Amino acid sequence: MKIIVVGANGAVGQTVIDALGDRHEIIAVGRTSGDIQIDIEDQESVRSMYNQVEKVDAVVSTVGHGHFGGVAEMSSDQFMKGITHKVLPQVNLVLIGIDHMNDGGSFTLTSGVLNRDPIRGGASAAAANGALDGFVLAAAIDMPRGIRINAVSPGLLQVSVDRYDGFFPGHEPVSSERVGLAFCKSIEGAITGQVIVID
Amino acid sequence: MKIIVVGANGAVGQTVIDALGDRHEIIAVGRTSGDIQIDIEDQESVRSMYNQVEKVDAVVSTVGHGHFGGVAEMSSDQFMKGITHKVLPQVNLVLIGIDHMNDGGSFTLTSGVLNRDPIRGGASAAAANGALDGFVLAAAIDMPRGIRINAVSPGLLQVSVDRYDGFFPGHEPVSSERVGLAFCKSIEGAITGQVIVID
Repeated sequence: MKIIVVGANGAVGQTVIDALGDRHEIIAVGRTSGDIQIDIEDQESVRSMYNQVEKVDAVVSTVGHGHFGGVAEMSSDQFMKGITHKVLPQVNLVLIGIDHMNDGGSFTLTSGVLNRDPIRGGASAAAANGALDGFVLAAAIDMPRGIRINAVSPGLLQVSVDRYDGFFPGHEPVSSERVGLAFCKSIEGAITGQVIVID
Repeated sequence: MKIIVVGANGAVGQTVIDALGDRHEIIAVGRTSGDIQIDIEDQESVRSMYNQVEKVDAVVSTVGHGHFGGVAEMSSDQFMKGITHKVLPQVNLVLIGIDHMNDGGSFTLTSGVLNRDPIRGGASAAAANGALDGFVLAAAIDMPRGIRINAVSPGLLQVSVDRYDGFFPGHEPVSSERVGLAFCKSIEGAITGQVIVID
């Protein structure tokens, strides 16, 4: 399969490369690294990526960031960061990518743990995750030509524990291997409209 | 209790009035009707409402609309309608309203069925619902002064069946009485961080 991995250089993206790279053609996409560089928040940049690769069998998105802070001090603009920097770029990869997806191909988005196991200051991120989870569930039944769509929703990755020190008290970290398997399930399996939870 | 009901004139808002109006002080808020008129997409208008009512014990939001259409024909702007017309106005009612909420008071938002039981063309709405569900779960643990927050997620209301004729095949309509009870549970009960599902 020809698989685009957007966010290939990140911790989650790396799980995809490690899990699938030995038996598929991976096109690694990043902001400043990888085979193709794009600005995921610029639709023209996303279109240009798809035009370069033409047809694909799978698109994986592991990108996005948001705002962390308590709701009592959160502005409307801060709330929206999770939407504009995580939800919309991932959704746009789908909306723009459908015409470039081979019959029976798959989109796999990445949400996360915070809308089922919240942390302090995580309301904007939780909303973003919930939006992505809801989107894949409903988008799946709209997809033409047998195209599938799922989300992988991992807990805190073991490799990211140091980076988020103190923000996820009591969260049991998940291995990169288990997260990689979730992407295999979405891409090489047959499910659609699922949120694949790795906790 | 002094309860603001934003969207009091709608089908869901009416369930709140019917369920709680006989034993609480309801301030009905609408775009063109009710005790106070506001534009829910204008933060200044929301601030003005809160300044008029000063302190409250509960805020209910039943507002929002979105885009319906298949993902294969959906633009990025169309996807965002669910966010800008449903998620953000409801979240802003919380973010702006916290300082006007009495200790132990509650916010109750309204999401909906489409992120657990999807229909064709409902991906934007499903994302909006998922965002609201995720937001209340996480915002609850951030709330100061014992303030609570929940979402009511009703199925298709019996009173709205004619309006949505054909869009919800096989969905079992829910009564306004049951939806009203969900708002009672959130406002008069003690739960927080919950999505109260009425199917």
